[in-house]
Amino acid sequence: MANKQFYGVIPPVVVPLDNERNLDVKSFERSINRMIEAGVNGLFIMGSSGEVAFMNDAQRYELLGEAVRIVDGRVPVLAGIIDMETLRVIEQAKRAQEYGVDALVATAPFYALGGPRENERHFRLIREACDLPLFAYDLPVCVHTKLEPEMLVRLGRDGVLQGVKDSSGDDVQFRWLVLLNEDAGHPLSLLTGHEVAVDGALLGGADGSVPGLANVNPCAYVRMQQAAEQGDWQKVKEEQDLLARLMWVTRGIVKEVGFGAGVGAFKTALWQMGVFDTNQMREPVQPLDGSDVAHIARVLAECGMLDPSMPLRTR
Amino acid sequence: MANKQFYGVIPPVVVPLDNERNLDVKSFERSINRMIEAGVNGLFIMGSSGEVAFMNDAQRYELLGEAVRIVDGRVPVLAGIIDMETLRVIEQAKRAQEYGVDALVATAPFYALGGPRENERHFRLIREACDLPLFAYDLPVCVHTKLEPEMLVRLGRDGVLQGVKDSSGDDVQFRWLVLLNEDAGHPLSLLTGHEVAVDGALLGGADGSVPGLANVNPCAYVRMQQAAEQGDWQKVKEEQDLLARLMWVTRGIVKEVGFGAGVGAFKTALWQMGVFDTNQMREPVQPLDGSDVAHIARVLAECGMLDPSMPLRTR
Amino acid sequence: MANKQFYGVIPPVVVPLDNERNLDVKSFERSINRMIEAGVNGLFIMGSSGEVAFMNDAQRYELLGEAVRIVDGRVPVLAGIIDMETLRVIEQAKRAQEYGVDALVATAPFYALGGPRENERHFRLIREACDLPLFAYDLPVCVHTKLEPEMLVRLGRDGVLQGVKDSSGDDVQFRWLVLLNEDAGHPLSLLTGHEVAVDGALLGGADGSVPGLANVNPCAYVRMQQAAEQGDWQKVKEEQDLLARLMWVTRGIVKEVGFGAGVGAFKTALWQMGVFDTNQMREPVQPLDGSDVAHIARVLAECGMLDPSMPLRTR
Amino acid sequence: MANKQFYGVIPPVVVPLDNERNLDVKSFERSINRMIEAGVNGLFIMGSSGEVAFMNDAQRYELLGEAVRIVDGRVPVLAGIIDMETLRVIEQAKRAQEYGVDALVATAPFYALGGPRENERHFRLIREACDLPLFAYDLPVCVHTKLEPEMLVRLGRDGVLQGVKDSSGDDVQFRWLVLLNEDAGHPLSLLTGHEVAVDGALLGGADGSVPGLANVNPCAYVRMQQAAEQGDWQKVKEEQDLLARLMWVTRGIVKEVGFGAGVGAFKTALWQMGVFDTNQMREPVQPLDGSDVAHIARVLAECGMLDPSMPLRTR
Repeated sequence: MANKQFYGVIPPVVVPLDNERNLDVKSFERSINRMIEAGVNGLFIMGSSGEVAFMNDAQRYELLGEAVRIVDGRVPVLAGIIDMETLRVIEQAKRAQEYGVDALVATAPFYALGGPRENERHFRLIREACDLPLFAYDLPVCVHTKLEPEMLVRLGRDGVLQGVKDSSGDDVQFRWLVLLNEDAGHPLSLLTGHEVAVDGALLGGADGSVPGLANVNPCAYVRMQQAAEQGDWQKVKEEQDLLARLMWVTRGIVKEVGFGAGVGAFKTALWQMGVFDTNQMREPVQPLDGSDVAHIARVLAECGMLDPSMPLRTR
Repeated sequence: MANKQFYGVIPPVVVPLDNERNLDVKSFERSINRMIEAGVNGLFIMGSSGEVAFMNDAQRYELLGEAVRIVDGRVPVLAGIIDMETLRVIEQAKRAQEYGVDALVATAPFYALGGPRENERHFRLIREACDLPLFAYDLPVCVHTKLEPEMLVRLGRDGVLQGVKDSSGDDVQFRWLVLLNEDAGHPLSLLTGHEVAVDGALLGGADGSVPGLANVNPCAYVRMQQAAEQGDWQKVKEEQDLLARLMWVTRGIVKEVGFGAGVGAFKTALWQMGVFDTNQMREPVQPLDGSDVAHIARVLAECGMLDPSMPLRTR
Repeated sequence: MANKQFYGVIPPVVVPLDNERNLDVKSFERSINRMIEAGVNGLFIMGSSGEVAFMNDAQRYELLGEAVRIVDGRVPVLAGIIDMETLRVIEQAKRAQEYGVDALVATAPFYALGGPRENERHFRLIREACDLPLFAYDLPVCVHTKLEPEMLVRLGRDGVLQGVKDSSGDDVQFRWLVLLNEDAGHPLSLLTGHEVAVDGALLGGADGSVPGLANVNPCAYVRMQQAAEQGDWQKVKEEQDLLARLMWVTRGIVKEVGFGAGVGAFKTALWQMGVFDTNQMREPVQPLDGSDVAHIARVLAECGMLDPSMPLRTR
Repeated sequence: MANKQFYGVIPPVVVPLDNERNLDVKSFERSINRMIEAGVNGLFIMGSSGEVAFMNDAQRYELLGEAVRIVDGRVPVLAGIIDMETLRVIEQAKRAQEYGVDALVATAPFYALGGPRENERHFRLIREACDLPLFAYDLPVCVHTKLEPEMLVRLGRDGVLQGVKDSSGDDVQFRWLVLLNEDAGHPLSLLTGHEVAVDGALLGGADGSVPGLANVNPCAYVRMQQAAEQGDWQKVKEEQDLLARLMWVTRGIVKEVGFGAGVGAFKTALWQMGVFDTNQMREPVQPLDGSDVAHIARVLAECGMLDPSMPLRTR
């Protein structure tokens, strides 16, 4: 099946900027190569963690072009086609398609909400307008809609969707989605975006994960995936424990809330670890500093990802 | 003050389509002229009621060009510059500016939420990028953020904002916004988007309203505004009562929910009244039909806006 | 009609405690008498502002007994019968009834939520179990359900409900409630709990208000009500402006959030004004202190309700 | 440690009523004995699934007395002490304590919400007033507050809490709770109320579960728990898959929403299986009937818990 190529660890790629907020191509190469060398099974460009909402179209497609060039076919590239409503999403789909990506990832409509009927029609219209495998991105925290398992599997059976990235935080619905998908012959590749509970999702039958935290520690996610494939669930749990602790980089941030705290923490960790050259964010979000940076470095050190005897990097 | 030109009744313009979902320019002219002849004080193009979220950029700017041409300076034109985050909004601002509009209307960032600090920085960055009067559009139902009165007035005093369209449904905060704005010397033109409670807002000190329902009955809103200016509050209340009943066109819709029920009802009313030629909606929303159309016609008849002896228009 | 006796200003009575958290009967008499002498049209005992949720039953009925004794028939007494679900509410109703109160006030079920059908059945079952006039208390912030206007008026027509205290903050639904109630022959006394927007509610047709802030300044609410009855809407608006500014006692509280900030501010204001002897709260809420007390005193002084040259009262 | 006795499968007991809505003692014995014989490790009386919100105190303590008598020391009994705020909860705690139960289960305050400070003080005050092991019941769907892991573990370390029933649906926070609890020396027994995702919770380190669905199929939950203790995670997943499918008894209910659909489906299943004599509910909730009963019977049959050749039981 078409979706068999989409499984395992597919990090949503966090994007390094220079101090003037331009794409830092060198750091981007470093980070992408680091994840591919760790053994990830794909990369998701222009997801929420990739600051897709904050980029104008020129920036989006500069980024996508560089990503495709750097990845160079080593792993599949999924591209977010995030916009408010159907026609705008279709425009993003058509453009992304030209860059040679392997799949597209679309949310339900947001801003002007309808009901399940509009959501289903939305995905069907995107399908009519493009040829690539299509993932539904279930992300109520941004989209304010929860996609129902029955609808997703119906769209899978009808060839509209080839997968789901579930970032809904609703593991009950996800379990039902897995079961319904099995009953239908597994038309959908089911990926959890829930980086702190990947172990349970894999045990329950997920095909893989889209963990933002895998930008920081891709190796542990790859080890967890491999242990799951081998049925070594004790090992799966241990890797997840380590990663759950590492996720504390995003907790207790005092200066920022919401997006700026979460992705801001990932960028700050990558900066302190030397993968990125700064932790610059896109407007209107500001980079973390002061005690927030110290907190992140401390968590990294506790998780063995930073030498605690080294001084903090400063801007 | 710059904002003195923005007051009174400024309908958010509902957009007629033909059956192929192209802009129906003739109906658009008919509806805009009808509102201007009724005495409205401005027109807001590309607001939520104008299906801004559903249009790609080509459609947005075709619409804006036609609107500016039709209005031809008779009243001020405000243009929505609705997009996810700051840079995308700024692109919309720069483009809208070229069409000769009189003011811009921007929401806070949506999709990837931050906190009040990001919201404030967002409006300041838009101001730096454009010269026109700028309105903040407070619309938590779409944007999932409530703008604080203190921040809005601070942005008014600093020359960043010239007005607020308040569709928050929070009349307590709106009252405080009015008082703080008075204390600061009235830098902001304060417009309520709350079409069923305009009377209370005017009594409390609002400068005007942005009522979607004014597409259906502009005359009553104009009469209400004039009565308020004359201090005839009994008359204000009577007009509002009539309009509150007319707003029942949007209630009890069985086929659609959310946006499709609300704006769908306005379009259906305008169609039945002969202002629009169809009630076509933009994808993925479908037009109302069957019993929903009959319900809307009945409400129109009860409010004296449709001859009940005439047959329903059908598609 | 039975409900004709319930109109005008009906404050939800805030309850003074001594430092050991017992009812401070002297302060309670002082505050009740102060409100009755100001001309209020009724008193609502054991509402949310009366800390009903925080009292065990012994405390509730000690309070109710004292209230009925102090009021002594000078104005109607409404008693809250607040509990989780129907049977528990009915027990409260039967007990409150024995104290000689004039009406009962019940919310929809909370904790275990159902739908509109359960809410309607709930009120019908309360009616079957008691004889007094019954008000529905629409308070989504505590109850997490919004009561629909159509259902409320149906219950009014059927003699189940005699009134509504609307603290929903939804002035659109309230306007429709007023209109539907008129169409049905005005079976319901409609009171707004929205103390900062009473003017708009009265203009729109409300029968009165249940403003917590009237504990602090009953006279202004009485003047506003009288001005409304005389059609002097400019005067109504001026009184509301003053009261909207006075409501800032509840804003910018730094030590507490939610209930403790709102009712805590009212108690602190009454304490600083000498009506209460302390600002003690019920467990687990703590009284405001420090800069929050100073803020409240400053707002009171700005509104002419406290002599700014006097030192703050301290505990 | 005191909490060592609370682990494994602890069903929240669903309560059978006769047609007059009195406790059906015979069915209650049958159901409790069935669960104990299946090997459950405890029983939680007067939880949300036990309709605690719908009972007056007389009914609550009749039920608790019968439960303690029937259980007769075979497994620990946990008793819900559910009420609005601290003092009312303490009254429930003192009374429940007299019935010889083994532990108490309390939510955070609801109805009048404060912040984390009030929640923490609330649990500390309950601890001061009673001697039994105390569980925090984290149930935002009813309580509208999420309890933070750090606070829960602090309360565990201080001897205030001995366990948590987590029905928050937030498996990220639950994972962090498990890790923090380990770091503190495991003061808390951590039970998930998430019956469809128990496998992931056990893999992640939960001490047990409080699954409402275990009233319907206690054996499978016991088998899942035992498999987890033996490290047979493939078996754990298989049992969970079966139970996730069985949980569809609660989905697609057309006549009721919310509580009445969920617990109503459990009662209807137990009735059709012959464990209960009716599926009667407490006022104002009505029992399921018609196509909803047929749906539930079909799911039971598909899960091998009902002979599909037998006619439906009717009332």
